[in-house]
Amino acid sequence: MIGRFLEDFAAGQTFRSGRVRIDTERIKTFGAEFDPQPFHLDEEAARDTIFRGLAASGWHTAAVTMRLLVESDLKPAGGIVGAGADEFRWPRPVRPGDELRIESEVLEVRPSRSRPDQGLIKVRTTTLNQNDEAVQVIIANLVVPRRPTPGGEEAAASEHVDPAGERVPSKYRRTTAAGPTNDH
Amino acid sequence: MIGRFLEDFAAGQTFRSGRVRIDTERIKTFGAEFDPQPFHLDEEAARDTIFRGLAASGWHTAAVTMRLLVESDLKPAGGIVGAGADEFRWPRPVRPGDELRIESEVLEVRPSRSRPDQGLIKVRTTTLNQNDEAVQVIIANLVVPRRPTPGGEEAAASEHVDPAGERVPSKYRRTTAAGPTNDH
Repeated sequence: MIGRFLEDFAAGQTFRSGRVRIDTERIKTFGAEFDPQPFHLDEEAARDTIFRGLAASGWHTAAVTMRLLVESDLKPAGGIVGAGADEFRWPRPVRPGDELRIESEVLEVRPSRSRPDQGLIKVRTTTLNQNDEAVQVIIANLVVPRRPTPGGEEAAASEHVDPAGERVPSKYRRTTAAGPTNDH
Repeated sequence: MIGRFLEDFAAGQTFRSGRVRIDTERIKTFGAEFDPQPFHLDEEAARDTIFRGLAASGWHTAAVTMRLLVESDLKPAGGIVGAGADEFRWPRPVRPGDELRIESEVLEVRPSRSRPDQGLIKVRTTTLNQNDEAVQVIIANLVVPRRPTPGGEEAAASEHVDPAGERVPSKYRRTTAAGPTNDH
């Protein structure tokens, strides 16, 4: 799970993904479990609703977007861990058969004021359909560890939950006795 | 699907839900499909991550929250249709066995400037665990139709996509020849 540390990110970097097709059956089963409203369950019932036809739950789109993000080259060390989002919208519905992909851009990189071993990156992820139309835009803040410094890891060993939502142990990643390892 | 129209909502109204239990297996299968990272997939692999143990994907929490919201008494006419969110965060992880419920509060009600037949309500939904700790907070803008006026429905019959993300047909709900029906 070793990946990019905070020092490896910079505003302007972009990341893309492969595509995933959203099929009718998964729209309906996701809807039945998590968002049981007519426009996510049945073509006929959906026709006379605001969506004028079957559409994926926005949470289905969000979940698929996460999958695409995990599979992209973004790969923060320790995984994609969201503290929250500054903006989140669904400009148009996802329809059966749509093929979704993402484009992510790093907007900002900043060390944590309270946690010397980590920082936050602000990333805008746009989910696009096969016609390159945006179906979701999210600007999320991700918790990313700073690159460990040899010998610097004993400074803060207790678990800590930051009131700002940065719920993280103060020592993010254990390093070996020989010092931190990374793939850079 | 008839429910509350814009005129039936007011700032300060609150809505609650029942509870749903999040079990280990669903955390893992949701993670495998949508958020395949060690902390959502396997107890052992999760131990040495930022979460220090298995935790539900934030998108799983979001999806379960939607289910609870759909089942609550909020019930806007035409369903719960989100235009987007102003705030979205996960202050603490959801663990196997947690029992989640929601508390929603209407913060603001406003007619649409461009669409005389609808408006937006701003709703803060807090998802709480069995210890009454917040695990998710979202402030979402929901599209809600205004109460139809008899004879007023021909004014705008074309479909329309609002650039601000209010993707809605201009005539939200068909009314009968005898005039609108509602359950109030």
